[in-house]
Amino acid sequence: MENSVKKSNEHSGEEDKERDIQENNNGHMCLAITNCNGETHAKLDEIITHYEGTLNQKISHFLGYPTNQNFDYDALAPLLHFHINNAGDPFMGSSYGVNSTDFEISVLDWFAKLWEIKKGEYWGYVTTGGTEGNLHGILIGREKFPDGILYTSQDSHYSIFKIARIYRMQCIKVGTLINGEIDCADLKTLLLAHKDKPAIINLNIGSTMKGAIDNIDMVIETLEERGFPRDRFYIHCDGALFGMMLPFLEQAPSITFKKSIGSITISGHKFLGCPIPCGVLLTRLEHINTLCKDVEVIGSRDTTISGSRSGHASIFIWYALQKKGLLGLENEVHKCIMNACYLKRKLRDAGICTMLNEYSNTVVFEKPLDCEFIRKWNLAYEGDIAHVVVMQHVTVEMLDSFVDEFIKTRLRKPLCLADKIGAENCTCILHI
Amino acid sequence: MENSVKKSNEHSGEEDKERDIQENNNGHMCLAITNCNGETHAKLDEIITHYEGTLNQKISHFLGYPTNQNFDYDALAPLLHFHINNAGDPFMGSSYGVNSTDFEISVLDWFAKLWEIKKGEYWGYVTTGGTEGNLHGILIGREKFPDGILYTSQDSHYSIFKIARIYRMQCIKVGTLINGEIDCADLKTLLLAHKDKPAIINLNIGSTMKGAIDNIDMVIETLEERGFPRDRFYIHCDGALFGMMLPFLEQAPSITFKKSIGSITISGHKFLGCPIPCGVLLTRLEHINTLCKDVEVIGSRDTTISGSRSGHASIFIWYALQKKGLLGLENEVHKCIMNACYLKRKLRDAGICTMLNEYSNTVVFEKPLDCEFIRKWNLAYEGDIAHVVVMQHVTVEMLDSFVDEFIKTRLRKPLCLADKIGAENCTCILHI
Repeated sequence: MENSVKKSNEHSGEEDKERDIQENNNGHMCLAITNCNGETHAKLDEIITHYEGTLNQKISHFLGYPTNQNFDYDALAPLLHFHINNAGDPFMGSSYGVNSTDFEISVLDWFAKLWEIKKGEYWGYVTTGGTEGNLHGILIGREKFPDGILYTSQDSHYSIFKIARIYRMQCIKVGTLINGEIDCADLKTLLLAHKDKPAIINLNIGSTMKGAIDNIDMVIETLEERGFPRDRFYIHCDGALFGMMLPFLEQAPSITFKKSIGSITISGHKFLGCPIPCGVLLTRLEHINTLCKDVEVIGSRDTTISGSRSGHASIFIWYALQKKGLLGLENEVHKCIMNACYLKRKLRDAGICTMLNEYSNTVVFEKPLDCEFIRKWNLAYEGDIAHVVVMQHVTVEMLDSFVDEFIKTRLRKPLCLADKIGAENCTCILHI
Repeated sequence: MENSVKKSNEHSGEEDKERDIQENNNGHMCLAITNCNGETHAKLDEIITHYEGTLNQKISHFLGYPTNQNFDYDALAPLLHFHINNAGDPFMGSSYGVNSTDFEISVLDWFAKLWEIKKGEYWGYVTTGGTEGNLHGILIGREKFPDGILYTSQDSHYSIFKIARIYRMQCIKVGTLINGEIDCADLKTLLLAHKDKPAIINLNIGSTMKGAIDNIDMVIETLEERGFPRDRFYIHCDGALFGMMLPFLEQAPSITFKKSIGSITISGHKFLGCPIPCGVLLTRLEHINTLCKDVEVIGSRDTTISGSRSGHASIFIWYALQKKGLLGLENEVHKCIMNACYLKRKLRDAGICTMLNEYSNTVVFEKPLDCEFIRKWNLAYEGDIAHVVVMQHVTVEMLDSFVDEFIKTRLRKPLCLADKIGAENCTCILHI
């Protein structure tokens, strides 16, 4: 969206009034805040209704990002009358009385069961999103191993590299296999070269672009082989989207605290669907107790990153879990995976290079050349490849229209993408 | 709130069903998520309605925290149907199409005018709250001066000390005057002892407990006197509550980018009022450009801390500013200050040690002994002192009831608080 804001240098009201609300040349509403006396409800309603229309339009072509846009929280609208704040540690209770920590703890208990860690042995909280979950998980690792090196695959979410920089940690990028999964052979070499320092490892469950799942078991094996016992490594699992999906897929790799991992985080606005970005972080209680000791020096049990935390986020997640139930979630996971397979087949049938990892709803294909087409369908891309993440709001009809239009706007022979998504997925003249 | 969550070790549904929704011994609803098939709307509605009643009850006695609970965003309820995400830099546009960056930029432009910095010279974003604003402002300071020392008064918000630790920065606590304001004489001494390193300074506009306003002009003067020219210091202003109020109070110290400050942050859920925690950070564009250069190395214009950011937060703030207008905001500020003066008088008339800083709505007094009274009125306290923050939802009737009850439950002579709030505010036998 272009910036359609009016430029006005003074907070004066009258002279700007007539321009208010009118649409500018781009068809956007003018949103500048200029009326000293406050705007009328009617004018504001007009803007919001117009904006709602724009959003509906966008949602109908929303394919490229892993956010579920199919949810209904109308029953929670009355709670918009309150500022609900779960400031601080959910397990300590909050002196801020208008909180929803009871809902938060129900949510955390549910995830503890999902990821197989007992109540009383875990700690966690509802975050503002995936980045805060990663900030917290990696901070635990760093506090445990102040001179530890952060290892993460080159396909990791951009937040991981930002966090390393913010935290002043040495960060080593590990290579990936062609499917986007961490390359344990490369990890082995890198660990060997830095065996004097503990390893803090971020694993992608799955990766942002290719939906690849790093192999937890193989990473732990690699660590052990290289002489890193359990007390010299810390593994954080960035499970933004798949952390919530894999438990519902038979034979999928298990994401569980029965393995030697330290923390898992997922995003609430991804698979579950939520109006605001949010997430869940779970770790072992022993880690947070270590962290707390340090925090007590500054006179506070300030165990979260953000301090003030949205009470609504916990209620949204709680409500979604309650409404869907385990069976509802399972059905949704299967539907997404099935539709992703459908899209893969359609693209392949149309002669377009396409890759779909196992247990993944992220369909990777050649980046379309037409910018307008990319924008219209909200595709995410990187270099020569683009992807569609098949979430709950994505229907077969949407996928059909998408593929039909793709074919129509595609005026070239397939690119060779063998080095990016594998020869078996490439439809170029050499690999077909 | 105590944790009323049921303990159940399995995700099994049937055996738990009969216990669902029933109230436990504490009168709380049971919130555990146990039904595999999903809960009925009726049951969930019952829980939400009960919770809404609890919140209404709490709001009617909500005095201790600086959050405005008097707002109405019913008109925005239809937007709860969308996940709106302003991922990334608001000025770069987002490839995530379902965004509200147009609203966000209108909000930022409004604050730029309020704090006197021209469009084109500032950069900023809508944050998840005060802590993220501080995280960002102090990060800019650290990236500008990698070996800089963070100075902040001992009365600063707990997030500042947490940030120093997270960022691996040397942090020096500066003493305060009795009113809670930074002690520039102490700052002078500390700067002298560390004059070889640049200074990154966090200022409280105002402080969490006493509502004290650090004197920006005097701090800048102190820096200059001690041989710190403008290119050797960075000032971040934590204006969580007052950053939004002082501009509407005649003769109050001005919070403006015309002074040598680097960034200002406020919380959206404090003075303005908002269901979810959020905030605004503004800085000089030159700083963010420096930050960006580094970020580009990792292949991204990833200029915010949180990455995925709530689009609703920007719309809430935008809506509040539009509806109130400058005159509406001014009236609200005056009402809060007037009611704070009223409370101060009432407490003093009752013989209770009380302090109220100039331009402040934070009334400080002796900590009540009765825990139930503290809990009922949601008072915040520290050591021997407690406070009421007189926000928009606080009526004269609430204050009258509060003081009446305080007097009734107070079965002692006034403590001497001369060393905490000044002899002139103390009502003990020595100072009356």
